[in-house]
Amino acid sequence: MTFRVDLNCDLGEAFTHSGSRIERKIIPYITSVNVACGFHAGNPTTMVETVNLAKKNGVAVGAHPGFPDPTGFGRRQMDLSAAEVSNLMIYQVGALASLAQASGTNLQHVKPHGALYNGANASENIAVGIISAMKQLNQNLILFTMAGSKMAQRAINSGIRIAQEVFADRAYDPDGHLSPRGNRGAVIRNPKIVSERAIKMVRERSVFALNGSSLKFPKVDTVCLHSDTPNAPGIVKAVREAFQKEGIDTAPVGAFV
Amino acid sequence: MTFRVDLNCDLGEAFTHSGSRIERKIIPYITSVNVACGFHAGNPTTMVETVNLAKKNGVAVGAHPGFPDPTGFGRRQMDLSAAEVSNLMIYQVGALASLAQASGTNLQHVKPHGALYNGANASENIAVGIISAMKQLNQNLILFTMAGSKMAQRAINSGIRIAQEVFADRAYDPDGHLSPRGNRGAVIRNPKIVSERAIKMVRERSVFALNGSSLKFPKVDTVCLHSDTPNAPGIVKAVREAFQKEGIDTAPVGAFV
Amino acid sequence: MTFRVDLNCDLGEAFTHSGSRIERKIIPYITSVNVACGFHAGNPTTMVETVNLAKKNGVAVGAHPGFPDPTGFGRRQMDLSAAEVSNLMIYQVGALASLAQASGTNLQHVKPHGALYNGANASENIAVGIISAMKQLNQNLILFTMAGSKMAQRAINSGIRIAQEVFADRAYDPDGHLSPRGNRGAVIRNPKIVSERAIKMVRERSVFALNGSSLKFPKVDTVCLHSDTPNAPGIVKAVREAFQKEGIDTAPVGAFV
Amino acid sequence: MTFRVDLNCDLGEAFTHSGSRIERKIIPYITSVNVACGFHAGNPTTMVETVNLAKKNGVAVGAHPGFPDPTGFGRRQMDLSAAEVSNLMIYQVGALASLAQASGTNLQHVKPHGALYNGANASENIAVGIISAMKQLNQNLILFTMAGSKMAQRAINSGIRIAQEVFADRAYDPDGHLSPRGNRGAVIRNPKIVSERAIKMVRERSVFALNGSSLKFPKVDTVCLHSDTPNAPGIVKAVREAFQKEGIDTAPVGAFV
Repeated sequence: MTFRVDLNCDLGEAFTHSGSRIERKIIPYITSVNVACGFHAGNPTTMVETVNLAKKNGVAVGAHPGFPDPTGFGRRQMDLSAAEVSNLMIYQVGALASLAQASGTNLQHVKPHGALYNGANASENIAVGIISAMKQLNQNLILFTMAGSKMAQRAINSGIRIAQEVFADRAYDPDGHLSPRGNRGAVIRNPKIVSERAIKMVRERSVFALNGSSLKFPKVDTVCLHSDTPNAPGIVKAVREAFQKEGIDTAPVGAFV
Repeated sequence: MTFRVDLNCDLGEAFTHSGSRIERKIIPYITSVNVACGFHAGNPTTMVETVNLAKKNGVAVGAHPGFPDPTGFGRRQMDLSAAEVSNLMIYQVGALASLAQASGTNLQHVKPHGALYNGANASENIAVGIISAMKQLNQNLILFTMAGSKMAQRAINSGIRIAQEVFADRAYDPDGHLSPRGNRGAVIRNPKIVSERAIKMVRERSVFALNGSSLKFPKVDTVCLHSDTPNAPGIVKAVREAFQKEGIDTAPVGAFV
Repeated sequence: MTFRVDLNCDLGEAFTHSGSRIERKIIPYITSVNVACGFHAGNPTTMVETVNLAKKNGVAVGAHPGFPDPTGFGRRQMDLSAAEVSNLMIYQVGALASLAQASGTNLQHVKPHGALYNGANASENIAVGIISAMKQLNQNLILFTMAGSKMAQRAINSGIRIAQEVFADRAYDPDGHLSPRGNRGAVIRNPKIVSERAIKMVRERSVFALNGSSLKFPKVDTVCLHSDTPNAPGIVKAVREAFQKEGIDTAPVGAFV
Repeated sequence: MTFRVDLNCDLGEAFTHSGSRIERKIIPYITSVNVACGFHAGNPTTMVETVNLAKKNGVAVGAHPGFPDPTGFGRRQMDLSAAEVSNLMIYQVGALASLAQASGTNLQHVKPHGALYNGANASENIAVGIISAMKQLNQNLILFTMAGSKMAQRAINSGIRIAQEVFADRAYDPDGHLSPRGNRGAVIRNPKIVSERAIKMVRERSVFALNGSSLKFPKVDTVCLHSDTPNAPGIVKAVREAFQKEGIDTAPVGAFV
């Protein structure tokens, strides 16, 4: 059996101009990039720079909209109405789509960021807002959702094209959520361990939670790696090379979902 | 001879949610609206609300992008590169276009705001940035420029579709620039005087500058009225009714430029 | 028996420079002003302008810190840690204190804004954060709290100097909370009704809730009126004059708590 | 002859929470820290974290106020009035002073950031605004100014306590300004070369400009090193050790100006 998976990373997350230092090191090894759209991080210039780097490296581009909370990096829950959530998503996706089009490329996907991504499973307003936004945006856009989550199922039921996503460098709680960053062991930094987790996730659609219990995913379309872990470029490179060695094909998720 | 002109106003300029109080009073009397896009003012929700009001009233929608300076309301000059100017315009126009499309409408025009509008005649970076943005955006979009300005000529030379704009509620300096808001007499608040100026501008393509000298415009496609003058709704209504009485047709500028 | 009460209003809430239009009309009739400190609204210049107006009119100045949510006007709940709440309060109060000192005046009080004020009764993090901030700031500063609330009691228990506050232009739910702004009847706009409520609140320490039930306050030190209600200046003037007519003394709350 | 100098660095410049990674590595080697105050970078939490690290390491704390331009990192010129400049400085310095006081320490100095620092020599509004702010703030605060600059002389003439500052990791143009970051050779990354420059600056009050000409400084009170150069911690450590080896004493500038 052949395995095929997308490898994605959140980039362009400097709030100020960054020179794309980290972007240049990571983009060659991934297949999809989630570009911060100016609310939790990023600005028009980092967006263009990241889109251009992606284009040059054959990496598919997606929007990474977040809450309007730059000082909290979009990681703090905000109590917005469904309409507010929908509006801020359509705004951010549209802004990036416009810049991408000016650079001669199109968006492949949308991945909500931080509290907007995680909140979708707990907050009715966020879930409804995300689905409403996806329905109003270009119907080809793929929504990245936590593999096997309530939100994933809800999006499927709404007829939205989705990619089921797993996190190779983050520990899972037994309930299937990511263990909060403050917790011991929540962020995994060893390239070898991250690679092994990624391979198991793709091949077995499974991962061990922090307490040792086994979690199963219904499907694994894309593996996320973070760019803000120390040595992130080394980790991303290691995972990509491990995939190659193990015969796991990598491609932008738009090619196969 | 029949005269036809567009009547435009900047709206959706609350930085916070506004309930669109002023918008509801003004939109029925104008033909084009310039919607603040979140950088100097406005946010996704005020944008949607303003677009929907415009649609309901048959008013054409345009983007009103500004400098990223909310506390200065985009009225303070910022020293940006041409690329930064272009990027922030493409971002803001794209964001509004996306929200407009979700609301079932399309953009007619782009009107840079405040220091971005006025700076185009003095700063090479701003002029180049605006032209670059318009070239990369949808070619049907009309750029609003100061009637008879250097920027207007430059945009025409670049093959950009433009509308020549005059300001009926603002005094002109003899050099053809708007007299700065701080100056005595710079903002005209009397509905009758504003109406008379507007009529003369359209019919004679002319206005008296602050020192009494006569300014000529090569063309007058659209007349701007401000929404932040006290009694703005009364002024807008007065001008619209004066146009009707004088047999000056009003229509969105996209219909005739 | 003589009654004495403070009359307070939130001002300086333009996010951009405002010219202090509303401020000039309201400040003559109040005794304490809550100045927005730049996070949900306001900026250094509106802060200085408001402080100077207050000083000129003998009105006591207080800080009105809010969540870092300008597009939501600080009215949306945000999930911050107690330390984040405390830090953002000390930051904002310090910023205003510095500007006030430069203008030759000192702060009398601190009134958290919007979701930060209301959230204190529901969120442990917010309550702990506010108390921690007040403990670390100048011990003379008075904390404005909802009269009779959990937060009021908690602040008293922590040894913080407080003022018990009531809202004359807002309806109360039977549980003693303000009825959310979206609800019918939540915002009271009739100057006569607001005045009668204010008088009853001061004299009888009581108000009728939306369902007609009677609410009692343990103490009423200060009455809040909002500046964003249409005809706010008219309402504030009416309440002040009603107090005078009824022999209710008004004074900055620092004079008597 | 004994030489004594202060070694300063801009820190707390993450706009989002940073975990103070770079701060922990650099603070042990410097004697004064310039803390970003939330306008161009930084937020209440990064400010507290940086202050606490400084306190623990015996490093003097200063405010590093900047233009309200987070996406431009405060490095783009903005056309503000002198009053706006003064107000935003008093706001930011006051905010940090308040947080510092809550952490049990006081401010030693004020160092304007980026375009606010460099602009002081070209813009009358900025120069006047900075001086006005320093006059209104605590008179003990030391203003960091470019050694030998117009602004330095102006501040001295106004009776402001100043520290003359040099930049060891940045190239100088022959006119005494820092060569813009975009220029080849403008940022010096070799720890040995930076150390040698720093030593020469302190001992000889001199540096070679990019064209080889020799620049003289009237006085050298403090040497700045940047934290955003790759390997910044290595550079800072190298300079500190070079000073020790060469018998140049280091101390917070408040001890000797």
